Amino acid sequence: MSIDTISEGLRAIVGDAACKSGTDAARYYEDPRGSFTGKTCRVVLPETTGQVSRIVRFCNETGTPIIPHGGGTGVVAGQLSLESSDAIILSVERMNRVRGVSTDDFVMVAEAGCVLENIHAEAERHGMMFPLSMASKGSCTIGGNLATNAGGIQVLRHGNARDLCVGIEAVLPSGDVLEELSPLRKNNTGYDLRHLLIGSEGTLGVITAASLLLKPRDRATVTAFCAIASPADALMTLRALRSTIGDRLDGMELMSGLGVRLVREHFPTLKNPFRDEYPWYLLVETAGNPGLRDETETALAGCIEKGFVTDVVIAESQAQRDALWSLRENTPDANKKTGAFCSSDTSVPIGQIAAFVSRTHAAIAAVHDGLRTNSYGHIGDGNIHHNVFPPEGVGKTDFLDAHPGIAARVREAINEATLPLGGSISAEHGIGRLKPHDLQRHSSASKMAALRQIKRAMDPNNIMNPGALFSDLLP
Amino acid sequence: MSIDTISEGLRAIVGDAACKSGTDAARYYEDPRGSFTGKTCRVVLPETTGQVSRIVRFCNETGTPIIPHGGGTGVVAGQLSLESSDAIILSVERMNRVRGVSTDDFVMVAEAGCVLENIHAEAERHGMMFPLSMASKGSCTIGGNLATNAGGIQVLRHGNARDLCVGIEAVLPSGDVLEELSPLRKNNTGYDLRHLLIGSEGTLGVITAASLLLKPRDRATVTAFCAIASPADALMTLRALRSTIGDRLDGMELMSGLGVRLVREHFPTLKNPFRDEYPWYLLVETAGNPGLRDETETALAGCIEKGFVTDVVIAESQAQRDALWSLRENTPDANKKTGAFCSSDTSVPIGQIAAFVSRTHAAIAAVHDGLRTNSYGHIGDGNIHHNVFPPEGVGKTDFLDAHPGIAARVREAINEATLPLGGSISAEHGIGRLKPHDLQRHSSASKMAALRQIKRAMDPNNIMNPGALFSDLLP
Repeated sequence: MSIDTISEGLRAIVGDAACKSGTDAARYYEDPRGSFTGKTCRVVLPETTGQVSRIVRFCNETGTPIIPHGGGTGVVAGQLSLESSDAIILSVERMNRVRGVSTDDFVMVAEAGCVLENIHAEAERHGMMFPLSMASKGSCTIGGNLATNAGGIQVLRHGNARDLCVGIEAVLPSGDVLEELSPLRKNNTGYDLRHLLIGSEGTLGVITAASLLLKPRDRATVTAFCAIASPADALMTLRALRSTIGDRLDGMELMSGLGVRLVREHFPTLKNPFRDEYPWYLLVETAGNPGLRDETETALAGCIEKGFVTDVVIAESQAQRDALWSLRENTPDANKKTGAFCSSDTSVPIGQIAAFVSRTHAAIAAVHDGLRTNSYGHIGDGNIHHNVFPPEGVGKTDFLDAHPGIAARVREAINEATLPLGGSISAEHGIGRLKPHDLQRHSSASKMAALRQIKRAMDPNNIMNPGALFSDLLP
Repeated sequence: MSIDTISEGLRAIVGDAACKSGTDAARYYEDPRGSFTGKTCRVVLPETTGQVSRIVRFCNETGTPIIPHGGGTGVVAGQLSLESSDAIILSVERMNRVRGVSTDDFVMVAEAGCVLENIHAEAERHGMMFPLSMASKGSCTIGGNLATNAGGIQVLRHGNARDLCVGIEAVLPSGDVLEELSPLRKNNTGYDLRHLLIGSEGTLGVITAASLLLKPRDRATVTAFCAIASPADALMTLRALRSTIGDRLDGMELMSGLGVRLVREHFPTLKNPFRDEYPWYLLVETAGNPGLRDETETALAGCIEKGFVTDVVIAESQAQRDALWSLRENTPDANKKTGAFCSSDTSVPIGQIAAFVSRTHAAIAAVHDGLRTNSYGHIGDGNIHHNVFPPEGVGKTDFLDAHPGIAARVREAINEATLPLGGSISAEHGIGRLKPHDLQRHSSASKMAALRQIKRAMDPNNIMNPGALFSDLLP
C-alpha cells in the first residue's frame, strides 16, 4: 500500500493534528546518547486506547510496522526506526491521564504516556509512593518503563518495573484490546499476559495503561555517602548492611572516583562532600521506621571499624540528600559530555562484583590503549554500568572515525568477561536494536525457540516493532 | 501406541522401581478434600531433569498426555487425570535436592520436588527466610507452588509464589530443557519465560527447579489475635495498620466465629484466646525492626480506641504464636471434617471486602435454605474463602446425593456476586479441571485468544496437562 494511503488511513483515525512527519518530528528519530539516528517516518499520536486499537488493526491489515514510543529515553534503539521509513512511530505521549487511585488497594491506574515523575507526585498526593526511579524520571514514561522492564536505583528493595505492576491494558497485534487492569493481588486465571507484555519491548503489543503497585510512605529515610577503597569493600559494606538493616536497605549506588570528578567538572555547582578525593564512593539509602537513622549510623560505624568504609557523611536535610543524589543522577549527562562511546549494561551475581570490575576493566584496556572507563551503578543488583571514553585529549567523533567498530568490540569484550561470571548481557536496558545479535549468540537454543514461538503466535504478520529483539525478524 | 509399549518406554528411561500403577499408586488419584477421583493411570517418578526431558520427549512423540504432580495438595484437580487412563502422572517428588544457596544473592536453587517446609528450614539454616507459606506447607512442593502461583498467608508483604522466584528450569513440551536459573535480579533478555511458566498449571511444561528469592530474617515478629465485630471493622483495622506499620504488616487473616468454633470442636486441645466468643476474629502479624512490638501495640490500642477492635491478645512466646496460628492453620481440616462441599477461592479489591462477604453470604443462602458458611482467609489480599456446609444435622454425602449439582450452583452464585465487585473467580488456587468453564465464561475474548495462541505455539501436540485450564483441549 502506498505511503499516502497509509497516511490517509491514520489521519482518519486520529485527525490531522495528531500526525507528524519529516522535520516536524525530528526528536522521534534521535536517542538520548546520540548513538543512533532513526529513519524519518510518520509519527502518530493517539489519545485513547480505542484509537490505538484502530491504528494497530489498520497496520496489521496493511502490513505496516509499528514502533511504540514512550519518553524516547531508551538507550538501545528500541524506539527508533533504523531499518525502514515505512514504519510508523506510535507515540503514547498524549495518553497521560491518571485514571484513578485506590488507596485501599495501593494501586494507581495510569495511562502509558504518564511521565514517571508525575506518577511519583500523584502517589505522594495520596500519601503513598511509587518506588520505581531512575535518572530519566523527568521524561521517561511508565509505558516505556514497563515495555522495557526498567530497573533503576530502588530495585534492591522494591524490584524492577514488572514487580511494581499488578495489571495491564494493551492493544495486541490483532488490534484487540486486552483489558487486565484489575488491582487484585491474587488473581490466578490463566497465563500471566501482563508479565509477558512487560519487558517485550513493544514486540507483542502496545501497552496503553497499567495498574501500578504503590507502597506505604516510609516514615524515615537516611542518605549516606561513603568513601571506600574498592568494589570489594563495597560488597563487604552491602553484606554488613543487609545483615542489620535487612530489607529496609533502599538503594546502594557505587560511583568511581573518575565519575565523581567528571560530574563536578561538567556541573561545577556540585560539590564533593569530602575534603579529599577517594578511589570509589558508595551512596547508601535506607528507609522505613522512625528509629532507622540510629540503626544506619551504627551499621556504618561498624563498617568503618572493620575497614570497609574510609569515611561517611550522612545528609541532615532534604537539600543535602538532593545534593548527594545529584552527583549520581547527573552521571549519565556527564558521561555524554565527556564523550562516552560505549555504555554497558550487564549484571553479575552479587558476590562476583569485584571480579567483574577488575576483569571487565582489563578487557576494555586490552581492546585499545588508553581508554578511560567510568564505572558506576546499582551494586546491590550486581548491575554496574561502564562508560568508556576515548584516550585523554581525543574527541569522540575523531576517535570513532579512526577506529570503526570499536564500540561493538568494547561491548563484546565486556560481554565476554561478564558471561563466565554467570552474568547477563542486558540487565535493565533491554535488547532493542542494539543487542539482538548478542541475545541470539548468548542464549540457549531452547530459549530462543520459545521466544520465537510466542512472537509468531501473537504477531503472525510481524508488525510490532520488527527489528527489535530478533535480528532476523526485520520489517 | 499401546499402553504396554508406553510403559516399556518409560521403564527404559527411569527404571522399574520408578514406575507405579494401579493400586500401588492410589494416592495419586485423590485430592486433599475428597472432591475428585482421578482415573487409575501410570505414575512415573524421575530423579533428574535429564530423565524428565527424555520422558517428555517420548510422550510428545507418542502423543501421551502428561500430568505433572507435586505434593498433590492442589484443590482444583490440576494434578489428577479425570479424563483418561492413557495419561501418565509425572511426579517430581524424587527431585528434592537443594542445589545451592547464595547468601550474597539471597537465592536458593531448589528442585521442584522440595517440600515447602524443608525450604523454610534450609533458608533458616543460612540465616534467611523464604516467606511463602500456607497451611499445606508440610506436604506441598515448590514445583507445585510455582506451577499454580500459590499465595497463602504472607502475600500482603512478600507477594505470591511468582514474586519469590527469580529463575526457573523447566522441560518444555518438546522435551527441550529451558535452563534459566540465574540468580540475577536484573536480566532483561527477551520475554520472561519464567513468569509464563509460573501459574501455567503444567500446561506449558514441567518446572524442574527454581531460583527462589530469600529475604533477610526479621529481627522481630509480633503476633496478635483480635476480636472484632464485622468484616467492615477488619478493613478499618487493615487501613489503620498499613498507615502506621506500612510494609512491615506481614499477614492479616480474617476468621469467622463459626470457623473458630469448628476448629476447636474438631481439635479440642486448641483454645479460644478470649473468654468470650465473638462474631469475627483477626489474626495480625507484623515483622521487621526490634522496636516493632511497641509500634504494633500502639497501633492496635488506637484501633480499640476507635472501636474497630473489641479485644486483643498479643503472643508473648513462640508457643503462644504457634497456638494462635494453629487456629488458622487447622481451618481447612476442620472444614473438611465438618463436611464442606464447596470451598471458594475468589478475591475482590480490598475496599469491597465487607460488600463481598454480605453479598456472597446472601447469594449462598439463596441457593438452598439452611446452608452454613465458614468465611476465612487473607483479608489483606482481598481473598476470603467461603466453605459451605449442608444444613445442621445433614451429612455431606446424603446432601449431595439429594441435591445433585448444588456445589456447582453455589460456586457460580459466589462468582456472580464476586464479579460485579471487580473480583476474580480464582485468587490463589488456579483453574485446574474444576474451573475451565468459569475461566472461559468470565474472561474476555481477547484474553482467551491470547492464552490459546500461546498454548498452541508451545505445545502443538497438546500433551501437557490436557484438560486443565482449557475445557476444550481435552486429551
